[in-house]
Amino acid sequence: MLEELKEQVRQANVELAAGGLVTLTWGNVSGLNAARDRVVIKPSGVPYQRLRPADMVVVDLDGRVVEGGLRPSSDTPTHVLLYRHFAGIGGITHTHSRYATAFAQARRELPCLGTTHADHFHGAVPVARPLTAAEVEADYEGNTGRVIVERFAGLDPMAMPAVLVAGHAPFTWGRDAADSLKNAIALEAVAEMALATYQLDPQAPPLEAYVLDKHYRRKHGPNAYYGQK
Amino acid sequence: MLEELKEQVRQANVELAAGGLVTLTWGNVSGLNAARDRVVIKPSGVPYQRLRPADMVVVDLDGRVVEGGLRPSSDTPTHVLLYRHFAGIGGITHTHSRYATAFAQARRELPCLGTTHADHFHGAVPVARPLTAAEVEADYEGNTGRVIVERFAGLDPMAMPAVLVAGHAPFTWGRDAADSLKNAIALEAVAEMALATYQLDPQAPPLEAYVLDKHYRRKHGPNAYYGQK
Amino acid sequence: MLEELKEQVRQANVELAAGGLVTLTWGNVSGLNAARDRVVIKPSGVPYQRLRPADMVVVDLDGRVVEGGLRPSSDTPTHVLLYRHFAGIGGITHTHSRYATAFAQARRELPCLGTTHADHFHGAVPVARPLTAAEVEADYEGNTGRVIVERFAGLDPMAMPAVLVAGHAPFTWGRDAADSLKNAIALEAVAEMALATYQLDPQAPPLEAYVLDKHYRRKHGPNAYYGQK
Amino acid sequence: MLEELKEQVRQANVELAAGGLVTLTWGNVSGLNAARDRVVIKPSGVPYQRLRPADMVVVDLDGRVVEGGLRPSSDTPTHVLLYRHFAGIGGITHTHSRYATAFAQARRELPCLGTTHADHFHGAVPVARPLTAAEVEADYEGNTGRVIVERFAGLDPMAMPAVLVAGHAPFTWGRDAADSLKNAIALEAVAEMALATYQLDPQAPPLEAYVLDKHYRRKHGPNAYYGQK
Repeated sequence: MLEELKEQVRQANVELAAGGLVTLTWGNVSGLNAARDRVVIKPSGVPYQRLRPADMVVVDLDGRVVEGGLRPSSDTPTHVLLYRHFAGIGGITHTHSRYATAFAQARRELPCLGTTHADHFHGAVPVARPLTAAEVEADYEGNTGRVIVERFAGLDPMAMPAVLVAGHAPFTWGRDAADSLKNAIALEAVAEMALATYQLDPQAPPLEAYVLDKHYRRKHGPNAYYGQK
Repeated sequence: MLEELKEQVRQANVELAAGGLVTLTWGNVSGLNAARDRVVIKPSGVPYQRLRPADMVVVDLDGRVVEGGLRPSSDTPTHVLLYRHFAGIGGITHTHSRYATAFAQARRELPCLGTTHADHFHGAVPVARPLTAAEVEADYEGNTGRVIVERFAGLDPMAMPAVLVAGHAPFTWGRDAADSLKNAIALEAVAEMALATYQLDPQAPPLEAYVLDKHYRRKHGPNAYYGQK
Repeated sequence: MLEELKEQVRQANVELAAGGLVTLTWGNVSGLNAARDRVVIKPSGVPYQRLRPADMVVVDLDGRVVEGGLRPSSDTPTHVLLYRHFAGIGGITHTHSRYATAFAQARRELPCLGTTHADHFHGAVPVARPLTAAEVEADYEGNTGRVIVERFAGLDPMAMPAVLVAGHAPFTWGRDAADSLKNAIALEAVAEMALATYQLDPQAPPLEAYVLDKHYRRKHGPNAYYGQK
Repeated sequence: MLEELKEQVRQANVELAAGGLVTLTWGNVSGLNAARDRVVIKPSGVPYQRLRPADMVVVDLDGRVVEGGLRPSSDTPTHVLLYRHFAGIGGITHTHSRYATAFAQARRELPCLGTTHADHFHGAVPVARPLTAAEVEADYEGNTGRVIVERFAGLDPMAMPAVLVAGHAPFTWGRDAADSLKNAIALEAVAEMALATYQLDPQAPPLEAYVLDKHYRRKHGPNAYYGQK
């Protein structure tokens, strides 16, 4: 069961590595089924190139393994928590990509400095707060999901499909596994550009709000005209 | 019709991606026919590797599709406006390459700091001003072309085949599609070098004007002696 | 004899080069046999791609060649000294990888700024002091090992499998050759991220100690739950 | 004639491009014959991948073409001038590699900050002064060679096989074409490391002179013990 989803998730994990977003095994992609009750995710610590569809692990929305002979990614509790709370998302990508992680380590949101950013993220990519010692001790990976959800109070996860977890790294999401991977690639690119921009001008201004809105609407919503129909 | 031009434009788009200048589908190359009334351009949002000559879209100088089953790049109105105003250019490349975009986001012109720059661009690469809210609302992509043309009042587009659009990204041009791509590659390289130069010395001096002129004339004009005849 | 170890060491040296950690022949990997009395190491100055198992040099723990027709790496005295003093390590990797070497040249320890670092190194990666003129003259490579051992007084080499030698470059180690290579890759990645983090905020805080401990214990020790059993 | 030298020079030019040191056609390698009266050099503006041995151009020490149907590199007068003045060198590489060029554009010498540098360059890599307007006008490329020779008064070109020409880019040399290429690769690597080192500490100290001497002598001179005999 879920064979098509397993192949989509496997492929997104392979492309994650091929695209230069991960070092060693620092990253994983998952996908949610149409019934929204099963998550397919990468097994923990297994190199990307070797992954076969049958290696993918199926868990329920409590993170319990329901199919597969390998342990799921240690970040599985974060993934399932996001699927439970963010309506409409169908894929999640977690990486430790260089520049997005640098912003997460600096605990600094990633402002929209240009149209490249605006095409993918509607505003500054937010930072989720550090976990407390108790939150780390009790249910670390689940609580990582909870501080992300807490940070998104009042935000639309479909308009802002990315977060930086303070002292940790980014998570991105999207309609499906492939879409969440696209957002991970875009996030790393705009993080690299933002650092270079600040090196040229530490006071570089954010993009004008009307350009941000325009670019976002070129690609998203009923009047989108980017790409093919 | 225009089969040769379609193949040239397709190839330049493929090389654009292979050369590391684009992430996802953030970039496009177009070419103008000899009669200067038809533009061949990349279809919007289609991955570069898959492009076939027949996928290329033909538009007139008002940006109306005259041949091809796919939507043209959403930046088409910018391209056609530049072809209408810049005599002598036959190809345009638009990218969001990392370092050139950082200069565009910092809204800072890219000065000539060395002979690498002088070989391609005769002086500092200029920045086109941000569009107003009204300009964004009415005809965003066409107005992007208009602010570029406005910025080039008194400048020779053949001696300065590049511009940085504030808060957006670079456009380059040239005799044909391949030449505009070369200038996009050169622009990204000199932008990266310029940032590194400023990190070593924020007051790094511009290249002496007589060296700028010399290098430019080695490669351009009647007394050029670089390359083969 | 030691055929399996030779192949392991050869492969780690090839992967060292393939992974982008070395320029020219600036790096080497060695492995210790189970009896802990023989070290297999790369021959000096030989390109990685050409290495055959039979090219690997076998030395004893005094660094004397006991098998092999080529000279061992000039860094051999450093390797054997570390094997003699650090119980439990079975592989060593030495590189001049860009960012880790920059920290070594700046003679600045590499603090733990995030969970990427915590997954591999339990705290700040220390700097070994510069050698004196007498130490350089008498037994340079051996003394390089001695200042590393001196710096690790009170530190557990298995919890901190890396060091930066001031004005020189990093050494990493691990259970075996492959594990030491993983730590070299991780060290370079976290060094690059740390520099970018400091460019965003020169006062970026170290990771909370309780998160450092948690991440380290996810991957190491009796309660580790990262990866497959 | 000079078939072996042509093949060596062709191969060094191909490796120059493959090694990531050049963008477009910004770089060239030449080699001197044993009789020290003929220089084989890359033709101007020809892509590296296509080069055949027969495309290599042979010039005399005045830069006059004596064999070959293509124009030699426009930098040929610089190459021949260096061969005339620097006894013992048999190959020259010129690039516009990113970081070495940034130091040249900042007109700042590249100090020895670590052993990586010391293994190849015995001290700080010097900067040759900018040419005057008259020197640019009269014999630009020849005078580029002359300011390099002027800067090397009192320096041994074999112990310091590199220079940064102010506002331009680096030249390196060596025993033969391949050796000059190695020095170009080493120069770019240490320039990148030096910039990163200064970003961590703008006051980073130079390497102790006794370590510089030690490392240089490990690789050069009668007591060298790096590599195979």
